[in-house]
Amino acid sequence: MAQGLKVAVIGGGSSYTPEIVEGFINRYDKLPIRELWLVDIEAGRHKLEIVGALAKRMVEKSGLPISVHLTLNRREAIDGADFVSTQMRVGLLEARKWDEHIPNLHGVIGQETTGPGGMMKALRTIPALLDICRDIEELAPNAWLLNFTNPAGMVTEAIRRYSKVRSIGLCNAPIGLAKWLSAKYDTTPSHIYTEFVGLNHLHWVTRIEVEGVDRLPELLDKRAEYSGKNVPASEWDPDFLRSLGGFPSYYLKYFYMTDVMLEEQLESLKGGGTRAEIVKKVEDELFELYKDPELQEKPKQLEKRGGAYYSEAAVNLMESLYGDKRDIQTLNVPNGNTLDFLPPDACIEVNCVVTGQGPLALPVTRVPEQAKGLIHAVKTYERLTIRAAVEGDRDVALQAMAAHPLVPSVRVAKRLLDEMLEKNRPYLPAFF
Amino acid sequence: MAQGLKVAVIGGGSSYTPEIVEGFINRYDKLPIRELWLVDIEAGRHKLEIVGALAKRMVEKSGLPISVHLTLNRREAIDGADFVSTQMRVGLLEARKWDEHIPNLHGVIGQETTGPGGMMKALRTIPALLDICRDIEELAPNAWLLNFTNPAGMVTEAIRRYSKVRSIGLCNAPIGLAKWLSAKYDTTPSHIYTEFVGLNHLHWVTRIEVEGVDRLPELLDKRAEYSGKNVPASEWDPDFLRSLGGFPSYYLKYFYMTDVMLEEQLESLKGGGTRAEIVKKVEDELFELYKDPELQEKPKQLEKRGGAYYSEAAVNLMESLYGDKRDIQTLNVPNGNTLDFLPPDACIEVNCVVTGQGPLALPVTRVPEQAKGLIHAVKTYERLTIRAAVEGDRDVALQAMAAHPLVPSVRVAKRLLDEMLEKNRPYLPAFF
Amino acid sequence: MAQGLKVAVIGGGSSYTPEIVEGFINRYDKLPIRELWLVDIEAGRHKLEIVGALAKRMVEKSGLPISVHLTLNRREAIDGADFVSTQMRVGLLEARKWDEHIPNLHGVIGQETTGPGGMMKALRTIPALLDICRDIEELAPNAWLLNFTNPAGMVTEAIRRYSKVRSIGLCNAPIGLAKWLSAKYDTTPSHIYTEFVGLNHLHWVTRIEVEGVDRLPELLDKRAEYSGKNVPASEWDPDFLRSLGGFPSYYLKYFYMTDVMLEEQLESLKGGGTRAEIVKKVEDELFELYKDPELQEKPKQLEKRGGAYYSEAAVNLMESLYGDKRDIQTLNVPNGNTLDFLPPDACIEVNCVVTGQGPLALPVTRVPEQAKGLIHAVKTYERLTIRAAVEGDRDVALQAMAAHPLVPSVRVAKRLLDEMLEKNRPYLPAFF
Amino acid sequence: MAQGLKVAVIGGGSSYTPEIVEGFINRYDKLPIRELWLVDIEAGRHKLEIVGALAKRMVEKSGLPISVHLTLNRREAIDGADFVSTQMRVGLLEARKWDEHIPNLHGVIGQETTGPGGMMKALRTIPALLDICRDIEELAPNAWLLNFTNPAGMVTEAIRRYSKVRSIGLCNAPIGLAKWLSAKYDTTPSHIYTEFVGLNHLHWVTRIEVEGVDRLPELLDKRAEYSGKNVPASEWDPDFLRSLGGFPSYYLKYFYMTDVMLEEQLESLKGGGTRAEIVKKVEDELFELYKDPELQEKPKQLEKRGGAYYSEAAVNLMESLYGDKRDIQTLNVPNGNTLDFLPPDACIEVNCVVTGQGPLALPVTRVPEQAKGLIHAVKTYERLTIRAAVEGDRDVALQAMAAHPLVPSVRVAKRLLDEMLEKNRPYLPAFF
Ligand SMILES: [Mn+2]
Ligand SMILES: [Mn+2]
Ligand SMILES: [Mn+2]
Ligand SMILES: [Mn+2]
Repeated sequence: MAQGLKVAVIGGGSSYTPEIVEGFINRYDKLPIRELWLVDIEAGRHKLEIVGALAKRMVEKSGLPISVHLTLNRREAIDGADFVSTQMRVGLLEARKWDEHIPNLHGVIGQETTGPGGMMKALRTIPALLDICRDIEELAPNAWLLNFTNPAGMVTEAIRRYSKVRSIGLCNAPIGLAKWLSAKYDTTPSHIYTEFVGLNHLHWVTRIEVEGVDRLPELLDKRAEYSGKNVPASEWDPDFLRSLGGFPSYYLKYFYMTDVMLEEQLESLKGGGTRAEIVKKVEDELFELYKDPELQEKPKQLEKRGGAYYSEAAVNLMESLYGDKRDIQTLNVPNGNTLDFLPPDACIEVNCVVTGQGPLALPVTRVPEQAKGLIHAVKTYERLTIRAAVEGDRDVALQAMAAHPLVPSVRVAKRLLDEMLEKNRPYLPAFF
Repeated sequence: MAQGLKVAVIGGGSSYTPEIVEGFINRYDKLPIRELWLVDIEAGRHKLEIVGALAKRMVEKSGLPISVHLTLNRREAIDGADFVSTQMRVGLLEARKWDEHIPNLHGVIGQETTGPGGMMKALRTIPALLDICRDIEELAPNAWLLNFTNPAGMVTEAIRRYSKVRSIGLCNAPIGLAKWLSAKYDTTPSHIYTEFVGLNHLHWVTRIEVEGVDRLPELLDKRAEYSGKNVPASEWDPDFLRSLGGFPSYYLKYFYMTDVMLEEQLESLKGGGTRAEIVKKVEDELFELYKDPELQEKPKQLEKRGGAYYSEAAVNLMESLYGDKRDIQTLNVPNGNTLDFLPPDACIEVNCVVTGQGPLALPVTRVPEQAKGLIHAVKTYERLTIRAAVEGDRDVALQAMAAHPLVPSVRVAKRLLDEMLEKNRPYLPAFF
Repeated sequence: MAQGLKVAVIGGGSSYTPEIVEGFINRYDKLPIRELWLVDIEAGRHKLEIVGALAKRMVEKSGLPISVHLTLNRREAIDGADFVSTQMRVGLLEARKWDEHIPNLHGVIGQETTGPGGMMKALRTIPALLDICRDIEELAPNAWLLNFTNPAGMVTEAIRRYSKVRSIGLCNAPIGLAKWLSAKYDTTPSHIYTEFVGLNHLHWVTRIEVEGVDRLPELLDKRAEYSGKNVPASEWDPDFLRSLGGFPSYYLKYFYMTDVMLEEQLESLKGGGTRAEIVKKVEDELFELYKDPELQEKPKQLEKRGGAYYSEAAVNLMESLYGDKRDIQTLNVPNGNTLDFLPPDACIEVNCVVTGQGPLALPVTRVPEQAKGLIHAVKTYERLTIRAAVEGDRDVALQAMAAHPLVPSVRVAKRLLDEMLEKNRPYLPAFF
Repeated sequence: MAQGLKVAVIGGGSSYTPEIVEGFINRYDKLPIRELWLVDIEAGRHKLEIVGALAKRMVEKSGLPISVHLTLNRREAIDGADFVSTQMRVGLLEARKWDEHIPNLHGVIGQETTGPGGMMKALRTIPALLDICRDIEELAPNAWLLNFTNPAGMVTEAIRRYSKVRSIGLCNAPIGLAKWLSAKYDTTPSHIYTEFVGLNHLHWVTRIEVEGVDRLPELLDKRAEYSGKNVPASEWDPDFLRSLGGFPSYYLKYFYMTDVMLEEQLESLKGGGTRAEIVKKVEDELFELYKDPELQEKPKQLEKRGGAYYSEAAVNLMESLYGDKRDIQTLNVPNGNTLDFLPPDACIEVNCVVTGQGPLALPVTRVPEQAKGLIHAVKTYERLTIRAAVEGDRDVALQAMAAHPLVPSVRVAKRLLDEMLEKNRPYLPAFF
């Protein structure tokens, strides 16, 4: 790292790229990037060129000595990198559309990161990531792989169990909560202490202290409507929420309010289409903006895209790893002894101290009884899915699908599996 | 025990009583009963008299020196007992009817031991059993309490956690499987080795060896239709079954084939009513038979009742405890270190060596990944229910109901809870 | 805490007091002390007056609005305190002398915190501390008790298990190592990362990274002689040290070089007496200095006393608790799930993140196989000793003494126990 | 196994062989041996011929259809075997002599299975056994390896961790205790229930129930002198024994009465030599007897040899494995979850139910606090020794030696190691 860091962004043609470029520019004093490599596949060449050109204009405006490289040669990008970040989407938004549509057609929640949709995304993505990891093992064995690719928890677990790459899974939900609490209580994140228990997109926040005052009871009592952009805002039952023992991830609505959420999805399907289709439109508009040669900064409209704070989360983590900062961040890492009912190699979402040698998971001080069964049920589905993805085993995939709490029966599981595997055939060579 | 054993049967007026009386008579050489106390409550006096008279005739015919006592005074029956057995039903078949009906009306499985119905049964039964345990602690502190009262796993766990009574939970399913395998493979149970993993009415049989030959693969492949009397016979998906990793309890159909099972229930509801109503008719017929003063033995018709081998299971266990027999039986006992993902005090259904000092759980050699999530999800519901029963806490009851995998959403959970608590008001003083 | 903090120092008449007063003065901006209460027992009145007067002069010179109170009324000092710190010595240096002498006379290591001497100190101290805890539970239930009183690990464990007081055990060894490494590598502690595994006075430092570079191999290879003032400097066997897997606490010499250490003790006994007697002289000299009404600061000579950085460790911890600083400190806290071979309530010495709600133990990333047996052997002795202290049970005390790795046989254990209990009779009412 | 079993005895030329031959003859109805192969190495040819001839005469006299084969070709003996039993002694009694002598010369316990002597025996034996296991893996992959070769616990653990062979470790101490209790209380072993906790030659018997009556307190109170032939009879301290929590293995005297035991060893060294030298004489006398062509049965004098019940233990185990007997035997098997402070693959000595698929460890219901540290300290030494044996690593061997509770310091450890490795050079090629 003598003269600055080399960073490779896999899926560099993503609409999110200006976010992370902005992050690198703003944090340059703490995180001196020397080379930024944006890499994409042939199918993404056009977008890479557009967003890459914008990235170069942004860096140029900053005046910083960062060199931006665009490439379709992944190995070149990875070679000697200090950090590799992934923001790829195997099958693009088209595949996501079917992840959402098909379950809906069978009366099941269709969602990109959980349920049958999330499972398909995992099956498509895990082999692709493990392939990248083979390159990292060879060309950048000391690199940190920051994995934003959803379903981030499963993908990170797969990497930790099936490769030697040092990988950490990231989500913008924890930082989003910190921002929301800061605004609500008019304080800075450093005066807020939150404790997360659970999995990626399946967490309970079991402690929320603001300037030393326990705010969890009041937050559970009123449930001031905090809701992510990706998730429609259905109301929680107040009795249920009050006794839940933790402030729920907004994804937990899919599990606790399955009926309402499904209704909303079916409504939406009739109307403008699924979330994938809405996102597709937003993205197209973004790329129109990015093409503007006068544009030298991240456009405001990017915030509508749903990945708020994504860049900040990534840059925070890189800075702490690089600078041995030892601050607390909520990350997806192997369980170790943290949750005594999960195996040590299961990835969980948990507070960590980020040292120069990597994150160390902090112990959880409260685990609501009511969360344990659901955590374990979803982790069971996740582990079966990871195995199915790695082995290309359809029997195991059926067990995974049937084990998911949102899938109502083996009969439905089998139909969904057959239909969805078929639809994803181009991305699942191991299964055919 | 100098001159023989004292046994107290709580719920002695049950139609099952002739079963256990027959067992005591047949096993007298190994299990010398001196006094058999049949105890019931005032509401059951009539049935107690009928079935008690039959019991006396049976003993008389046997010529054995067993004295049979009928009483409504529970403390008298328990005082100094060596064994206490429970076969009571709080709320009688009427309550069971609503346990089955009400969920069905909301599109949810209605079943006496699992789902919302099982939960209500637990809420009614646990306080009643703990009340009995207070008497046992005082009057027969060294007695073994054999608990057949369903949901047997939860009730046994509640007793172990909230009293000092030495209690073991029993189900006839394991012995039923042994009988079925013996017949199928034309051998004796001592040449069969089965290993159970899971909870009461939620187990997987992960090893089946007959005369040293592993028969599990062929049993999972064909699934020769083995089905209990209590459970309608729906077909398993062959791909699913083959890769399930264990021969499933027939109750697992409620979880894996929820849709089919629900359809059958709704059909049945339209027709002759729920299972409770059918059982009611069988029972009425049985008591008509019992009244016959010529009858001196257990009538054949009792087998239709669904509790096959119930007596054999009970007598086997008593004999091994009394005689320090050290044979293997499948029982409901505290987990200890057996399943590493459940707390030590959680009751599980597991192979045990039965010594004179009680059962010792054998380690499980195979735990299918796919079973873990479901076991933990149901155990979570069970622990919340036990807590709700003991504390009479409606919030905890809501968490329990919502945590049950067969309850589709918090909204439905709340409706079911409100309606079912109201219907059970006479038996749930702690909640009102 | 509205207008600053109240701190009570039990054993306020100790010669260490000027250390901590200096710490409070220097750190006033981060840790605004409003009231400092120095409390001692009647027997310590004279020393309390001397050192208390010096404390007042030091504060006066600083110009800070801290009020210093001297009292023999412990409850007054504790009432409403934010922090309670202990630096007491039951039986004074006279008792320590016998802790060191008697074992030596039987050919056994005589040391104030380990071996039979440490055991006696624990038996004297634990009941006294638990008595103080009764006051804290009543008068300052939210106070943090910072426990420096040796044997700090055992005393802290006793408090955590037998009272409701929030207590943390502290030793100056970890901070001492950080200082030594800083000097050696010419860097600041924030650029050093060390990981501790083990118990108080029985730790292995299994990671030492300085500015990101792993320095453990070179430190184990050369063993640049780092040695605490309390412990004579015997040479490690280079082959042994190199393969030990962690940089050893200097107290480990008592276990690994028992023969050499014992020889040195017997030599020293012949000469100027045990360590207790040397310390006694140093203390007398210190109090002569303290009496000087011109003295307004901590005298240099205090450093000879052996408690270097004691004040810094205490003030660091208070500051992080008060300010929710979330930095890493090495503390004595309950094990939780950290070491999988010890029970959750066993106190260990381990890196912690110090939050406003208390310390959270960090996972240990490396545990040398060779350390496990010794850690468990000593912890076994510790737990038996704690039980003996609380129950006043001589049989358990014999088991504890015999279980200590430095005690060569039950025969010697029994002789030592009889003789030492007798000598400590005034401080051990529970045993007589 | 269609027409009877094939058994291979490695070290078939041992003086113990008539014991096991007698066992096979007596138990033929339950354990139909077809072929018995006695195999030894070239150096043992003479003894093999003598004892083999006696074995043949014994079988002939019995009239049973067992064929006895003598061979120096190990692979021939192992090929297709159902059971392999080991009773070999690498280095013969000459090596044992030095195992006992050298420690004594340094003031340390010299014993064949514990302390430095046991360590050397392990270093010699483990590689030899693993070599045999390579043959078993290839030629008899389904065979059970019954390992009597001391130190049986360590050897068994090494086999389980470093080969695929199904191995069980055996000691005659548990059966010896059962016999002694039977005689003392005039009952049969089936009316005795004992529970063992610990390691081979390091166990505590924490439950002793005879005909349902708890006899542990009286046995600990009086300590009716029960002592094995291998171990001199020193008196336990009555206070210590009473509060020990379990009836101790006679090998525990080496740990608790180190001083007395050492004195006795030094006395004995001055007199007739170490135990090895006494055994040598007994063996020579035995072989003289064995030569007598009239002798057709096990001579009485064999009992002096110290391996009482060795044959019975072996035959019992084979019978239960062959017949799926499901009785309880005390064996050396992997820990699994039994002791929560040891790793799953650590071998422990524990009650097991012996099924046709192997032994299943029973949970331990009582673990004395005082035993934990010593168990873990010795297990630490054992695991380091196993690693040293497999890797031939002198550094690890030094850590092992220094970690043994009977070795007083690193200095002594190093001297012992150097001297003993040198003396064992012919048997330790990996170290030179
Ligand atoms: Mn996310
Ligand atoms: Mn049942
Ligand atoms: Mn210290
Ligand atoms: Mn042995």
